[in-house]
Amino acid sequence: MRTQVGIIGAGPAGLLLAQMLHLRGIDSVVVEDRSREHIEGRIRAGLLEQGSVDTLTEAGIADRLHREGLVHHGLALRFGGRSHRVDLSELTGGKAVTIYGQQEAVKDMVAARLASGLPLLFEATGVAVHDLDSARPYITFRYDGRDRRIDCDVIAGCDGFHGICRPSIPAGALTIFDRVYPFAWLGILSRSRPMSEELVYARHADGFALATMRSTTLSRLYLQCAPDDDLARWSDDRIWSTLRERLGGTLEDGPILQKGVTAMRSFVAEPMRFGRLFLAGDAAHIVPPTGAKGMNLAIADVRVLVRALEAFFAGKGEALMDSYSATCLDRVWKVQRFSWWMTQLLHRYDDHDAFEERVRLAELDYLAGSRAALTTLAENYVGLPYAF
Amino acid sequence: MRTQVGIIGAGPAGLLLAQMLHLRGIDSVVVEDRSREHIEGRIRAGLLEQGSVDTLTEAGIADRLHREGLVHHGLALRFGGRSHRVDLSELTGGKAVTIYGQQEAVKDMVAARLASGLPLLFEATGVAVHDLDSARPYITFRYDGRDRRIDCDVIAGCDGFHGICRPSIPAGALTIFDRVYPFAWLGILSRSRPMSEELVYARHADGFALATMRSTTLSRLYLQCAPDDDLARWSDDRIWSTLRERLGGTLEDGPILQKGVTAMRSFVAEPMRFGRLFLAGDAAHIVPPTGAKGMNLAIADVRVLVRALEAFFAGKGEALMDSYSATCLDRVWKVQRFSWWMTQLLHRYDDHDAFEERVRLAELDYLAGSRAALTTLAENYVGLPYAF
Repeated sequence: MRTQVGIIGAGPAGLLLAQMLHLRGIDSVVVEDRSREHIEGRIRAGLLEQGSVDTLTEAGIADRLHREGLVHHGLALRFGGRSHRVDLSELTGGKAVTIYGQQEAVKDMVAARLASGLPLLFEATGVAVHDLDSARPYITFRYDGRDRRIDCDVIAGCDGFHGICRPSIPAGALTIFDRVYPFAWLGILSRSRPMSEELVYARHADGFALATMRSTTLSRLYLQCAPDDDLARWSDDRIWSTLRERLGGTLEDGPILQKGVTAMRSFVAEPMRFGRLFLAGDAAHIVPPTGAKGMNLAIADVRVLVRALEAFFAGKGEALMDSYSATCLDRVWKVQRFSWWMTQLLHRYDDHDAFEERVRLAELDYLAGSRAALTTLAENYVGLPYAF
Repeated sequence: MRTQVGIIGAGPAGLLLAQMLHLRGIDSVVVEDRSREHIEGRIRAGLLEQGSVDTLTEAGIADRLHREGLVHHGLALRFGGRSHRVDLSELTGGKAVTIYGQQEAVKDMVAARLASGLPLLFEATGVAVHDLDSARPYITFRYDGRDRRIDCDVIAGCDGFHGICRPSIPAGALTIFDRVYPFAWLGILSRSRPMSEELVYARHADGFALATMRSTTLSRLYLQCAPDDDLARWSDDRIWSTLRERLGGTLEDGPILQKGVTAMRSFVAEPMRFGRLFLAGDAAHIVPPTGAKGMNLAIADVRVLVRALEAFFAGKGEALMDSYSATCLDRVWKVQRFSWWMTQLLHRYDDHDAFEERVRLAELDYLAGSRAALTTLAENYVGLPYAF
């Protein structure tokens, strides 16, 4: 089998890349080791920047997003027992964010791919990539009971943090930047009315909490916990009372449909390219979820990669492939900074001394009272401008 | 001897307080343990916020400041080998900062005090404060060969970080917030033309540097060094070559008139009042010099204290004296945050990991490209609005 772009991973990065290449007449094969049911059921991020919505719209896979997505023009910051609304749209000249579960976006992209009749191979096992530093890299795997090989011009590593692409790059070719935070998020999905029409980010002396939603009847709620916390220690009662304590306000409870602990990590691998292998999304970088940037950063990478591949297959050379990594990393690091900033500002650190604690509170006080500071939060939250 | 306000310390805080009280018909005595020559010769900060200039002007001690002060409408941030001008005035609706040596401001205040014929006692030894939690606190000291006692209604502790006032407050009545940085500044005063008409703040891989000036022929230059660095290891040649390396650009050298190492510290004592003793300026808080805030914060404290004392002596009660500490601390912590932020952004930390280093560089990149972020820098640098 032969294709122009072999795409490893059917998450948002891989599927969006396949769709955008398809619209430009570039062939691809998507190879995924999990089942369709699995990837369509994975609960992940659910907040799209303005630019992400625009990108999905241009890619023709946003009809349901526009119908069902919840557009938010602001958010609430809660600290010191008071809530402060941040008017994102007013501060950014009309931009907004949209709540739309990542798995919903993935379903839309899978449907588009299947409708196009182009190859999307689920449950491929033993996926491996080869000859990355040649002009003819290839992918091997077992699918439908047979060993397969796909010869490619380019391979896109969109297989996430635990995927096989990044580890296939020779040791020494990558520099790793890594930060593990001394806390995690306990997240629940509950059948209950959201506490507010907008997101509520709360800093409480006991720890962070976040109230968000998936629909008008489905709440998504998070609270800071220990990284090694045992879910068994978190009864539903304890979860609700902790959320109420940290979020203030009125919080309706309901049946908890899902419960999980998310580790908090900042991670970047540089460069995002090795030979003809291009890493995109979580395969190259992880952000802590506080800034809601994971999927958005993947979408931004894909935009840059599509432009580079379009030029390459149009015979315009490799200049944009050569600048792919640097172009992506400029945004990646700004987003890492923002995600780190939101995280350290809003979480409780057991090892922070009293000076650091006061500095954080002073920063929140300053933020709530300065239009300029609120604008920095808003312009990052709705998404910094793309490089092109 | 009897007075309304006994002022310990003839630095900017104490002298400004004396002058502002005088204008409101409130008696004071200023007691200082050093000589006039000493306090007029001490080289300290030299940058006044817009509000500080306004305050000194209202206090009638700014004639020479307006004649000789160098008004700056911007500054330069240098990193990654490039300089970025920050247009302070454009970003803050016309505000500016003024370069005027602290010792010059002190000379003007001493002259005003002496001209008024009101008591300003230099070289007072063994100064002590007593009965602070009574309505009749008093000061004792030896002056001109005799033991003296001044009975006061209120004592103002304006005697700096190493003064006797803060330690006179009983243990347990104060909470201390303290942060010592793992670096210091080596500062020189040189007879040479300033490298730029505005301040240059430089972040270099080897460490921070700052180019500023006292006049068109006197340069004040700083470079990050180790806190325990030995001045003997810093020859003039090494200083100039290090400054040139870190500051880029063309730097004219000249005779070095003064050379010293400044420790970097963040310190706050809370509350800023004990009974009838009110701490103001460095007696209550220290900021690292990066944000140029030390003298400005002292002036802001004095404004709050004058208002409280004016109400008190007008028979309007103690409400403003009771809120003195909280009113001051709101600004103090915002300024601590800004000074800490400037410091950590621009200095080299030997113990920072690669992730933190990249986050700092991304923050500088973001800052240089975001009007909102530049405005946060500018509005803090020219001085946040006063509470009243």
